Amino acid sequence: MATKAKDVAELCGAAHAAAPQVAASSRDVRDGALEAIAAGLEAGADEILGANEADLEAGREAGLSDALLDRLALDPERIGAIAAGARAVAALDDPVGELLEERSLPNGLQLRKVRVPLGVVAVVYEARPNVTIDSAALCLKAGNAVVLRGSASAARTNEVLARIAAEAVVSAGLPAEAVTLVGGGDRAELAQLATQDRTVDLIIPRGGEGLKKALEGVATVPVIFAAAGNCHVYVDSSADLAMATRIAVNAKVQRPGVCNAAETLLVHREIAPEFLPLVARELVAAGVEIRADERSRAAMGPGLADQARAAVEEDWATEFLAPILAVGVVDSLEEAVGHIARFGSRHSEAIVTGDPDAARRFELEVDAACVYVNASTRFTDGGEFGMGAEIGNSTQKLHVRGPIGLRELCTYKYLIHGDGQIRE
Amino acid sequence: MATKAKDVAELCGAAHAAAPQVAASSRDVRDGALEAIAAGLEAGADEILGANEADLEAGREAGLSDALLDRLALDPERIGAIAAGARAVAALDDPVGELLEERSLPNGLQLRKVRVPLGVVAVVYEARPNVTIDSAALCLKAGNAVVLRGSASAARTNEVLARIAAEAVVSAGLPAEAVTLVGGGDRAELAQLATQDRTVDLIIPRGGEGLKKALEGVATVPVIFAAAGNCHVYVDSSADLAMATRIAVNAKVQRPGVCNAAETLLVHREIAPEFLPLVARELVAAGVEIRADERSRAAMGPGLADQARAAVEEDWATEFLAPILAVGVVDSLEEAVGHIARFGSRHSEAIVTGDPDAARRFELEVDAACVYVNASTRFTDGGEFGMGAEIGNSTQKLHVRGPIGLRELCTYKYLIHGDGQIRE
Repeated sequence: MATKAKDVAELCGAAHAAAPQVAASSRDVRDGALEAIAAGLEAGADEILGANEADLEAGREAGLSDALLDRLALDPERIGAIAAGARAVAALDDPVGELLEERSLPNGLQLRKVRVPLGVVAVVYEARPNVTIDSAALCLKAGNAVVLRGSASAARTNEVLARIAAEAVVSAGLPAEAVTLVGGGDRAELAQLATQDRTVDLIIPRGGEGLKKALEGVATVPVIFAAAGNCHVYVDSSADLAMATRIAVNAKVQRPGVCNAAETLLVHREIAPEFLPLVARELVAAGVEIRADERSRAAMGPGLADQARAAVEEDWATEFLAPILAVGVVDSLEEAVGHIARFGSRHSEAIVTGDPDAARRFELEVDAACVYVNASTRFTDGGEFGMGAEIGNSTQKLHVRGPIGLRELCTYKYLIHGDGQIRE
Repeated sequence: MATKAKDVAELCGAAHAAAPQVAASSRDVRDGALEAIAAGLEAGADEILGANEADLEAGREAGLSDALLDRLALDPERIGAIAAGARAVAALDDPVGELLEERSLPNGLQLRKVRVPLGVVAVVYEARPNVTIDSAALCLKAGNAVVLRGSASAARTNEVLARIAAEAVVSAGLPAEAVTLVGGGDRAELAQLATQDRTVDLIIPRGGEGLKKALEGVATVPVIFAAAGNCHVYVDSSADLAMATRIAVNAKVQRPGVCNAAETLLVHREIAPEFLPLVARELVAAGVEIRADERSRAAMGPGLADQARAAVEEDWATEFLAPILAVGVVDSLEEAVGHIARFGSRHSEAIVTGDPDAARRFELEVDAACVYVNASTRFTDGGEFGMGAEIGNSTQKLHVRGPIGLRELCTYKYLIHGDGQIRE
């Protein structure tokens, strides 16, 4: 099922050749393509489910875990949700052609800075086949051609999904190569994709640290990692303790397996004896394993401390992605900021405080994509932020920080109109 | 004079430790630092000139070309210009803290997207010592600590300049390490700088293709190349020929050694017989060597064609950075756009036309940072664009395209205020 290594360059070249037609197409054409994708998924549900069953069968034979098989599995309801997602993206505002700046220069030149598509965006992802359509929809809406590389375990499903999407874009008047699937092959093939800098403008890997390591130091195409989050909740001495409990528990347990879930709770020493028993009780009741430093354990009291493990250095650095929370006591806001600077991944960080000065200092000094005052870290999400949808969250500082939405899948160009101006 | 290789990591670490204080400083403090740098340059002119004379002496002994020696040389006037440049940067609007977006979310969260400094910006450059101060001024103004790596040939001059700048920032209340010089060493040392991704947020190389190649495939720190420009002027069939002549000549000869100068002139076949003799005469009179394809030579007529060399394939791909211009005839706007897509470097491209439809198509279809209609490519410049100053021009599509000014030396963060919101 995997594409031959020598084909990756050709496939990317074909997507590159298709890109200008996508970029120049009207909003109606691109939205029509997304509607056609949604309709195609609904009409092709049986074929999709058949291919998915074959992938699942092969996965069971290969001994994939139940969790992986669940991520791989589609059913009519999930297909309906994917189609609805494509229609929701079609309904979003068009980012292409947005006027970002406009000015008349003293010499009479008219300068406009306009948002334009990037060109070809490659998305590399793991088991979930819904990412095939989600990524295609977002990239097409932003005027880009898309190169998709899913995992080998979903190869049959992805092939049907990508074929339906390609037929749909053709029905809307765009070239089939605007949606190009590069089969899930080996790491050498991934490296080949990552070096197509003449034809691919951006790679977005959606996956774990293994994928990141496979691309770092190899890629010549620009990469934005939809990255890991080692997020903290810091409870300041002036915090409302009921609010702090609600936020800390929500940030950890509402969905522990995602990047904006909290992994460490830091507590100011002044309120630790009152706060830690409260929050620890609720965390334990919610099934969370606590890994606490010595001062936290002392503050929890013996009953709760016995249920907590002693935190080791590595716990501060770990993105558990599970119902596990590291808990530590700090002497000051400075110490909390320093801890976050040392261990945080620049994703989402929260302070719970009643002191506006402490809030301002935390906002200023914490270097992260999203800094929260008195709210859960779990809101870091393109949908929650009112951006409509996202293809992931960036912890990098260049181009995009936080949710990667439609605008972030674009670049810009300067258009300068004159009537014969030359430089003296 | 070169820093020991083992020191690069330490120096970058010290700059990283200094960065939060720069980022958190007020506009007045940062502007004060720039004013102190300007005053320090004026007060230290003799010392600077002494060090520069030692560099020049060593350069002459090492057999540096006159052109390189000229780029290396300072005199009181040049020092005055560098000081004036620092003051001009201080007078620019402060990019730090600019509110980019603000909205209330349905759940009551208040979201603000705010421009913040990148952290540590490293600038790698070649002979010109003025870049030491220009880069420091722009980076500091944007709230960043700066790591400077000049060339070995200017090591003595750069050391004095960087020391004056570091003393100036201390006098303004900022840490000395906010301006950190990494001596001009060998390529291994450059590679070490390029892999300090834990402490350096961005590297901007200002130099030729050799520098680019030395960083590509090595750097783990994000890089924005202040890059080469293979720029085109396309003269459409509907062009005003006097205007087209003026623009083509200006784009080539006004300053041939810079990245926004034109390297190729493309002419629509319908107007070639009338236009090419006009423009070729002026180009030759201005001392330009023409490298023309067969149809251009035919259109020029025998007298001028004899003074032109026959263009070879390589000429279309070359950034001459010299009074040399490749000239070709095309059958259509499509062919011009295709030629630019194949050979252009996505920097600055111009069309001269009287036809608004042709202008629109050129703007839409040409993939470049700056697309000009009826104006010279030579305007691609942060100063000309009203951005105040620039550290170079980017031909990349991510983060910044075209002039790299103060705003582009920043990133952003989301600040989210709540009153206890959790995700359901």
